[in-house]
Amino acid sequence: MTVEKRLKNLREKMAESGIDIYIVPTCDFHGSEYVADYFKTREYISGFTGSAGTAVITSVEACLWTDGRYFVQAEKQLPEDYVLMREGEKDTPSIREYIQTYMEKCDGTVTVGFDGRCMTAGMQEETGLPNGVKVICDMDLVGDIWPDRPALSCRKIWRLDEVYAGKTTAEKIKDIRKEMADKGCDILVETVLENIAWTLNLRGDDIACTPVFLSFMIVEQEKMTLFVQEEEVDNQIAGYLKENQIDVRPYEDIYRRLSEIKNKKVWLDFSSANFKIVNLLKQENEIYNHFSPALTMKAIKNDTEITNMKKAHLLDGIAMTKFIFWLKSNVGKIPMDEMMLGDKLEHFRGMAKSYVGPSFAPIVGYQDHGAIVHYSATKESCYDVLPEGIVLIDSGGHYLEGTTDITRTISLGTVTDKMRKMYTAVLKGHLNLAVAVFKEGCSGVSLDLLARKPLWDMGMDYNHGTGHGVGYLLSVHEPPNAIRYRILNNPALNVSLLPGMITSNEPGVYLENQFGIRIENLILCQESKKYKDFLQFETLTLVPYDRELIDEEMLSETEKELLNQYNRRVYEALEIYLTEDEKEWLRNTAMET
Amino acid sequence: MTVEKRLKNLREKMAESGIDIYIVPTCDFHGSEYVADYFKTREYISGFTGSAGTAVITSVEACLWTDGRYFVQAEKQLPEDYVLMREGEKDTPSIREYIQTYMEKCDGTVTVGFDGRCMTAGMQEETGLPNGVKVICDMDLVGDIWPDRPALSCRKIWRLDEVYAGKTTAEKIKDIRKEMADKGCDILVETVLENIAWTLNLRGDDIACTPVFLSFMIVEQEKMTLFVQEEEVDNQIAGYLKENQIDVRPYEDIYRRLSEIKNKKVWLDFSSANFKIVNLLKQENEIYNHFSPALTMKAIKNDTEITNMKKAHLLDGIAMTKFIFWLKSNVGKIPMDEMMLGDKLEHFRGMAKSYVGPSFAPIVGYQDHGAIVHYSATKESCYDVLPEGIVLIDSGGHYLEGTTDITRTISLGTVTDKMRKMYTAVLKGHLNLAVAVFKEGCSGVSLDLLARKPLWDMGMDYNHGTGHGVGYLLSVHEPPNAIRYRILNNPALNVSLLPGMITSNEPGVYLENQFGIRIENLILCQESKKYKDFLQFETLTLVPYDRELIDEEMLSETEKELLNQYNRRVYEALEIYLTEDEKEWLRNTAMET
Repeated sequence: MTVEKRLKNLREKMAESGIDIYIVPTCDFHGSEYVADYFKTREYISGFTGSAGTAVITSVEACLWTDGRYFVQAEKQLPEDYVLMREGEKDTPSIREYIQTYMEKCDGTVTVGFDGRCMTAGMQEETGLPNGVKVICDMDLVGDIWPDRPALSCRKIWRLDEVYAGKTTAEKIKDIRKEMADKGCDILVETVLENIAWTLNLRGDDIACTPVFLSFMIVEQEKMTLFVQEEEVDNQIAGYLKENQIDVRPYEDIYRRLSEIKNKKVWLDFSSANFKIVNLLKQENEIYNHFSPALTMKAIKNDTEITNMKKAHLLDGIAMTKFIFWLKSNVGKIPMDEMMLGDKLEHFRGMAKSYVGPSFAPIVGYQDHGAIVHYSATKESCYDVLPEGIVLIDSGGHYLEGTTDITRTISLGTVTDKMRKMYTAVLKGHLNLAVAVFKEGCSGVSLDLLARKPLWDMGMDYNHGTGHGVGYLLSVHEPPNAIRYRILNNPALNVSLLPGMITSNEPGVYLENQFGIRIENLILCQESKKYKDFLQFETLTLVPYDRELIDEEMLSETEKELLNQYNRRVYEALEIYLTEDEKEWLRNTAMET
Repeated sequence: MTVEKRLKNLREKMAESGIDIYIVPTCDFHGSEYVADYFKTREYISGFTGSAGTAVITSVEACLWTDGRYFVQAEKQLPEDYVLMREGEKDTPSIREYIQTYMEKCDGTVTVGFDGRCMTAGMQEETGLPNGVKVICDMDLVGDIWPDRPALSCRKIWRLDEVYAGKTTAEKIKDIRKEMADKGCDILVETVLENIAWTLNLRGDDIACTPVFLSFMIVEQEKMTLFVQEEEVDNQIAGYLKENQIDVRPYEDIYRRLSEIKNKKVWLDFSSANFKIVNLLKQENEIYNHFSPALTMKAIKNDTEITNMKKAHLLDGIAMTKFIFWLKSNVGKIPMDEMMLGDKLEHFRGMAKSYVGPSFAPIVGYQDHGAIVHYSATKESCYDVLPEGIVLIDSGGHYLEGTTDITRTISLGTVTDKMRKMYTAVLKGHLNLAVAVFKEGCSGVSLDLLARKPLWDMGMDYNHGTGHGVGYLLSVHEPPNAIRYRILNNPALNVSLLPGMITSNEPGVYLENQFGIRIENLILCQESKKYKDFLQFETLTLVPYDRELIDEEMLSETEKELLNQYNRRVYEALEIYLTEDEKEWLRNTAMET
C-alpha cells in the first residue's frame, strides 16, 4: 500500500473520530530510544525510516519534523506532498506553532489526537499544545489502519547471573525501597525498560541491540508487581520472580492497576513515562516527578560490573585490533565495501564465547560518508572501500561482561595533510579529556571543553556531545552521565560525575563531502589516586590509535607521552591473544615516537 | 543594650503574638546583596556583623546560621548561649530540619514568624517551612524592640547622563514592554534596585558602595509607576520622570497597589521579590516567574557603556599602578598597615575627576590574612605591612564611566618558592581563561576549567567562583553571567555568555595560616575576530602582574607570550599618565622575558 493510500485511510479515521490534527511521534510505551517494529507507526504513515521524527497530519496536509542528521534521507523517502520540517533551521515552525497557525485559520475548537501510550509526558510538554485545543489521546489510529502490522515482540526473558550483575535483585530492591522511603514515596511506577531489566537482573530481546523486555514495574514497600507478556516468562524465570516476592501480571493490565491508585505519593518520571500513565496518576495522587532511583544506581557500576567491563573491553580490543590488522592487510587485495566491513567486524566479535550481539548498528563511513554523523550503509548507499583515504568505524558489542562502544578512524593508504591535521586535533582533545583531574561535584559540562579546545582554537567544532553514559548489557546510551557543553533544562541531566560511571570520550570533526573523523574510548570515573576529593578517569577501551594519521609536530611532549603510554598499554594487554603478524604490526604501532 | 536583653524583649513580643519561632534573615525589601543600616535586624538581634547569616529564635534557644567565611568571626561576636550553625558542615541541620525537630518535640501547631518584606520568596522556598506550620509574616518584631533603629536611608536621586548610559530611558522602557508583550505579560513588577536604576538612568545613595535608591516599579503597556520616598526626588528628577510618563507614588504604597491587581499575567521574579509581594499577587493572577527583562538587558553592555568601561579601566589602571609603585617604593621606609593601604588606594582613585566611590569595601590581606577570602581589616585585626612576603589587594571603583573590580597579589620583598609556585599556577589559569575561544551557547560552567586546570592538576582548588558579572555604576556583583563549575538549580543562572557581558576572571589559591593569592581582571565577551559563531574575551583591566612572583619555568612559551603581550599593552596604555619613576618601574615590569 502506498503512503498516500495510508494517509487517505488515516484521514477517514480522523474524520470519523472528529480529530483535526493527528500526531505520530517515534516512541514506544516506554519512551525508549529505539523502538521495536510494532511501534514504527511514524515510519508506516510517512515512509521515512530514520530513527527520529514526528509526523503531523491534518485533513489537507502531512508534515514530518526531523533533525539535521536526516534531511537528505527524509527528502528521498517522503512522498511528494509531505512537507519536511527541518528542525533547528530558523524558519521552521515548532509543532506547537504549526498547530497555533492552524487554529488561527479555523473557526471553533481544534481537536488534536495522538496515542497517549506512545508519547512521553515530557515530549507532550515540550510539544506544548496551545491553550484551547481539545485533546483525544486514547486512540491508535495508525494501528487501526495498519493491516499487516508486526506483532508486539514477545521473546523469552533470560537471567543475568550475579557473577555478571554483581548485586542480587533483592539487594537492589532494598536500595530502591530505601530511596522511596527517604523521599516519602509510597509507590514507584517504573516504566523505563532498562531500569526494570537492571533491577531484576533479567534481560530480554524485544528491541534490536538493547536486551530488554517489554514490561512495567510497580514497587511498594511490601509488594512488587511486574507487568509483562506472560509468554515471555518461562518456569525458571517465574520461579525466580516468585522467590523475590514479585507478582506477575499481564502487560496490558498496567493501566487498570494504575487507575486504582489514589491518595498516594507516587514516584514517576515525566520525562520517560507515557502521557496516559501520567494522566491516570496525576489527578488523585501527589507526584514526585524525578528520575527513577534505579537510573542513578544503574549508572554507578559496582565493583563486579567494573571488573567485568574491563574483561569485555579486553575481548572487544582483541576483536577490533584483529579487524583493523585484517583491514589494513587486505584493503586493495580483496574486494570490500562498507557493509562487508561491518559484517567482518561482527565476525571477529563473535569469536568471543560470551558475545551476545552488537550494541547498535555499526557505522562504517568511508571517505565523505564519514562526515555523516549517523550514517548507516544501505545497499544503495554503500561505497566500495579502496586502499586510499580514511574510514570511520563506530561500533560496539554486548558481552555477558558488559557493553562496549568504540570508534576508530583508520587510514587505508594515502592520506592528506588535512586529514592528519584534523585527526591530530581530535586526538589531542580525546587524550586531554582522558587524563583530566577534577573536583568532586564537577559535571561533564565543565570537562567538555578539554575535548573541544584544540578544535575551538581553530574555529572548528563537532555538532554532538562529547560523551554519553553506557549501560551494562543494556542500552549503549544511558543517562544521566554525559559530557557536553550545553546545559539541559532538566536539571537531573546535568549531574556531577561520580565514581563508577562509565562515559564515552568521542570528539570528532566532520567536513561535509570530504571526510569525517571520530575517536572514541569509554572512560570510567574513579577517585583520584593522588588527591583527596578529586576524581579522574580510567580508559577502558584497548585499541590502538592510527599512527599514520598523526601529525606529531602538533603534539606537545605531554601528549606524545600519553599516546605512547596508551599504545604500550594496549600492546601489553593484547599481545598474548594475537598471531605473530598481528603482534608485529601492533608492536610497530605501539612503538614510541 | 546587650544582645541578651534584646533577645528577652523579642521573646516577650513573640509570646504576645503567639509566635513560637521567629526568623531574622539578612535582607532588605528588595533581596539586595548588601543592606542599608535600617535593615540590619539580624545584626541587632545576634551581635554578629558579617554580611550573611540568618538568626532563628525560639522561647528557649537562639541560633545563627552562617557560612564558612564567618565561623571565626561569629564565634567571637555571638553571645555565649547563641548556637552557631555552621552551614556546609555535615552535622549542621538546615533551618527546615531545625523547625521540624522543634515540631516533633511539641504538641499541637507551631507558629513561625518573620517579616515577609525582608525575606525573598526564593529564600522562603529554600528554607522550606515544613508542612503544618502556621506562618505569621506581617510583623517586624525586631523593629518593634529596636529603640534607636537607624532611619530608612533617604538620599537624593541623581541622573546618569545618556553620555554614560548610552541609551535613553524611553528606549529601555520600550524594549522592556516588547519583552512583556512577547511573554504575554500585562504587568511587570520590578523589585530589584539595580534593575530600576538601570531602566531609569538614575542613581542614588541608599546602600553603601551600590549607587541605587530604595524603590519599586510597576510597568504596564500604557502606564508606569515608581514607588519611592518622595524626599529623594528633587524637582529636576520629578520633571525627568514626568517627561518619561512615569507616575511617582510613595514608597510604602506599593503593597496597597499590588493588592488591587487581579486577573492579570504578572511578570515577577520569585528569586528576588519579597514574600509579601509574591503572596499579594499569586492568588489572583497568573505569574510568569522569571528574571526581569531588565536583568539580561543590563548585563549586555551597549557600545557606549563598553567605550566608557574601557575609560574607567584606564583611570583605574593609572590609580592601581601608581599605588603599587608607591607601595613597593615605600614599604619598610614608612609605617603602614592593611587599613592604611586601603585608604591610600582610595586616595589614588579619588584623583580621577569622574570617580564616584569604592565599588565595595577593599580587601587588603597581608600574609596569612590573604588566605581569608572575604577578609576585611578592622582596628583589632589589622596587620602592620612589612618589606617581606605578599599582600593580596581586592578593590574596585565606581566611575561615571563604569565600575571596576581588580585583585593583585603583590610581593613586598623576600618571597618563598611556594608563593611563586602558587602565584604562577593561578596566573596560568587566569591567562588561559582570558584567551579562550568558545562556541556561541557556551556558558561559564564550561569555561571555568580553563582557570582551575593548573591548580586541579596539582590537587588544589579555590572555594569560590572564577567570575561574576559586573554592573555599570551599579552592583559590582551582577547576575546572570558568571564563570563557575557548579551548575545552579535556577536554570536562569546558568546562562550562555553573550557579547557585551562583562565578567571577572579571578582564580586564586588560599593556604590557611600561610598566605593567599588571587589575580583578577574584568573580561568583556565579544564576537570572535577570526571565526564565525565563536566568541572570545577582551581583557579590560590594565594593571601589571607582579614579575617577582612568577616562576617562569612553569610557563609554556604561549603563556610567556601572553604575559608579555599583556604587560606591554598596560605599559603603552598608561605611560603618558605616569611620572618618570613610575614609568621606569613599569617599563622594567613590562619588559619581555
